[in-house]
Amino acid sequence: MDPKLLKGNLLLFFLVAIGFSAAAQTAEDSILIRRLADTILTDGRAYGNLKLLTKNVGARLSGSAGYYKAEKWGQMVLTEAAADAVWMQECMVPHWVRGGKDEATFAGGGGAASAGLDVLALGNSQGTDGKVVKAPIVLIHNFDELERRKDELKGKIVFYNYPFNPLFVETFQAYGDAVRYRGGGASRASKYGAVGVLVRSMSSTVGNEPHTGALNYSDSFPKIPVFAVGLRDADKLAAAIEKGGVTGTMKSNAHMLPDTAAHNVIGELKGTEFPNEYITVGGHLDSWDPAEGAQDDGAGCVQSIEVLRALKAIGYKPRHTIRAVLFANEENGGRGGRKYAEAAKEKGEKHIIGLESDNGGFTPRGFTLSLSDEKLAAIQPWLKLLRPYGVYELVKGGGGSDVNPMGRQLGAAVGELRPDSQRYFEYHHARNDVLENVNKRELEMGAVNMAALIYLIDKYGL
Amino acid sequence: MDPKLLKGNLLLFFLVAIGFSAAAQTAEDSILIRRLADTILTDGRAYGNLKLLTKNVGARLSGSAGYYKAEKWGQMVLTEAAADAVWMQECMVPHWVRGGKDEATFAGGGGAASAGLDVLALGNSQGTDGKVVKAPIVLIHNFDELERRKDELKGKIVFYNYPFNPLFVETFQAYGDAVRYRGGGASRASKYGAVGVLVRSMSSTVGNEPHTGALNYSDSFPKIPVFAVGLRDADKLAAAIEKGGVTGTMKSNAHMLPDTAAHNVIGELKGTEFPNEYITVGGHLDSWDPAEGAQDDGAGCVQSIEVLRALKAIGYKPRHTIRAVLFANEENGGRGGRKYAEAAKEKGEKHIIGLESDNGGFTPRGFTLSLSDEKLAAIQPWLKLLRPYGVYELVKGGGGSDVNPMGRQLGAAVGELRPDSQRYFEYHHARNDVLENVNKRELEMGAVNMAALIYLIDKYGL
Repeated sequence: MDPKLLKGNLLLFFLVAIGFSAAAQTAEDSILIRRLADTILTDGRAYGNLKLLTKNVGARLSGSAGYYKAEKWGQMVLTEAAADAVWMQECMVPHWVRGGKDEATFAGGGGAASAGLDVLALGNSQGTDGKVVKAPIVLIHNFDELERRKDELKGKIVFYNYPFNPLFVETFQAYGDAVRYRGGGASRASKYGAVGVLVRSMSSTVGNEPHTGALNYSDSFPKIPVFAVGLRDADKLAAAIEKGGVTGTMKSNAHMLPDTAAHNVIGELKGTEFPNEYITVGGHLDSWDPAEGAQDDGAGCVQSIEVLRALKAIGYKPRHTIRAVLFANEENGGRGGRKYAEAAKEKGEKHIIGLESDNGGFTPRGFTLSLSDEKLAAIQPWLKLLRPYGVYELVKGGGGSDVNPMGRQLGAAVGELRPDSQRYFEYHHARNDVLENVNKRELEMGAVNMAALIYLIDKYGL
Repeated sequence: MDPKLLKGNLLLFFLVAIGFSAAAQTAEDSILIRRLADTILTDGRAYGNLKLLTKNVGARLSGSAGYYKAEKWGQMVLTEAAADAVWMQECMVPHWVRGGKDEATFAGGGGAASAGLDVLALGNSQGTDGKVVKAPIVLIHNFDELERRKDELKGKIVFYNYPFNPLFVETFQAYGDAVRYRGGGASRASKYGAVGVLVRSMSSTVGNEPHTGALNYSDSFPKIPVFAVGLRDADKLAAAIEKGGVTGTMKSNAHMLPDTAAHNVIGELKGTEFPNEYITVGGHLDSWDPAEGAQDDGAGCVQSIEVLRALKAIGYKPRHTIRAVLFANEENGGRGGRKYAEAAKEKGEKHIIGLESDNGGFTPRGFTLSLSDEKLAAIQPWLKLLRPYGVYELVKGGGGSDVNPMGRQLGAAVGELRPDSQRYFEYHHARNDVLENVNKRELEMGAVNMAALIYLIDKYGL
């Protein structure tokens, strides 16, 4: 038998067995998703928009001139994407400034001369007012050891050398495990009289870039300076301390200014059937100051904009209103995400889902969604439509930190794109988070799957 | 109810339902694979070995001094991996040399002055004996157009500007589609009197690196020089030719020398039950001359060696003899792979499988295997063991070109690692195929899955 005939007969059998309408539906979805992919892969704007954001705008921490330039970029590219409406939503944000180069050195440890460390003050860290803080350094491996050795810490610099555990296959688990030392290490050391903190960077890199990120001070203890240290330098420092007698210096002008105004930038496609029901897709517009914020989270911004552009470009008329939101202040406050949910609550808006991309523009593998077991089971057939584009999993889980308030405040489902995680913590919050470390096709494949999922949610609901 | 208790009861139910022994088996496999992962992710040698190969050895085309240095590296690292035996297997290989920098220019096309093109002579290409070949350039989009315009080609340089189609989600399909112009374009143009060929690089890059690779001349027509052109330069050249009147120059010292001897480098762990039945895992040791051959195929070499090292390091005693093979001459002849299969056939060796890694050390997604539908179905339960490490698919397909002769000559199964393909053709056969474009964790995750699959094949057969 001609294999083509066999194929035809099998298709017929298939159609009869599952019912013509469902198969026709699936075929229609498959064709529409292919059209979304075609425009994103051949005529896409994600990479070009990211190039503008990283190279023409660059770093854009809350309150910086770069952030306001980024807001203008966001309005421009959402308008170019042919959003039906583009607007800004104001929110107050923290305004932390680094104030120049952070410096740290160490000396001693088997007679070594003074050596510089590659460091970055953590975001929100108090600096040293430009003065040099000099003190012996105590090597602390974890919080248990900190508690055991609390009587040794007065007047010292505490160096947390907790590793980014390579045994976690999913690197976000290693991050979650280690980030406690960045977030809460300062006040726990300050409580026992430490005058400064150095913290091993949360990274899987083979390089020495320090990785910054936000810390949270407790108001109960003095706000001491905290610097992230590059991994190779952290190893050197730890080895010197093991030999004994190491003194360090820290110097930084970092400080917090009064809160200032910033904006979420929002674009939408108006729904044709349910214009007052909303589907939100977004990333965050702010980035850390030493980098271009290419993976974190320029990628998520341009992917979200690309979802809108692609749906419009193929002439799709959404049933619900679909919004792309570029959130303000994810990195050191989360104010933009909270503002968006609060404003929606005040207006009594009905939100179906908030989907975020904030795990980098790497090759996509799946989505997490905050759905009940039943709802999650019901949408598993969508995987047949996503698998050709590299997504294998629709699994239970939360959204990104910008959309999670939509779950809490609005009862919306939340979710996020889960790209491959192996490379994210090479670049996260470090100087090398630049366009050159984003792959155009990986970025686009993420956008393809996001657009496909948003389309399916718009068509079938959740 | 305490959720832990519930979990315990569910586990008990599970054990009873599927039978204790199968569950115990799976648990044992799961633990053993976790131990393989642990040694590879924390104490692995793959990245360090690759650093030595790329930075201390570097480029290693067949016949070059670099290749012989690479053979020594291979013996050393297989010995360090504690292989029970390490040896070399001689084979004759082609010996092509570039002979310096290839040069091309074009002038005309709206009055433009002469401009240089970033080019690399294709592997096996005849050069111009160091003389300048100057001729009008004819823009040809595909072989159909070549045939239609065959009367215009005499004395001309043919420029094949066939695109690397971005619509293929799997980039190897775009490569397979475009590579015809690299492999066979020279003789098809020479047949009609062309004096040289320029060919658009087979790449998805946003950059301008030219991507070399092998060509095959037909003996029926003059062997004319062929250069790969970087994508941005190809666009410029095509735009100029559209305006008309473009003349080009080509200059190269490339030439073929007589065949020379090279070696496959082989290490093995002796089987305890079936020492005369073989499982082979490998990559190819040669690389193109302008690069470090980091992704192609240093990655596959160090992953294959890592499989041996990890199995030995955890104290696993293989039932069958497991070999890591670093094949000679994949890039411009395939002689090493054929030699390995021929020698095995002469000795009457029984080979169970040849598994290759030659698609880059990117994050793993699956394996292709040349198994019957029944056998493939029978091993699908292995996916439960591989999924935690990122492999989602065991699908029907061929092996790499080094192991495919084992299928044809020995009746062995063949297969290959299928990592994510989005970035491969940024680096493939280009100057930027360097260590810095390999991610340590991605490389290791590939090795983890290869080691796990080899273990399962050794334990359960195929």
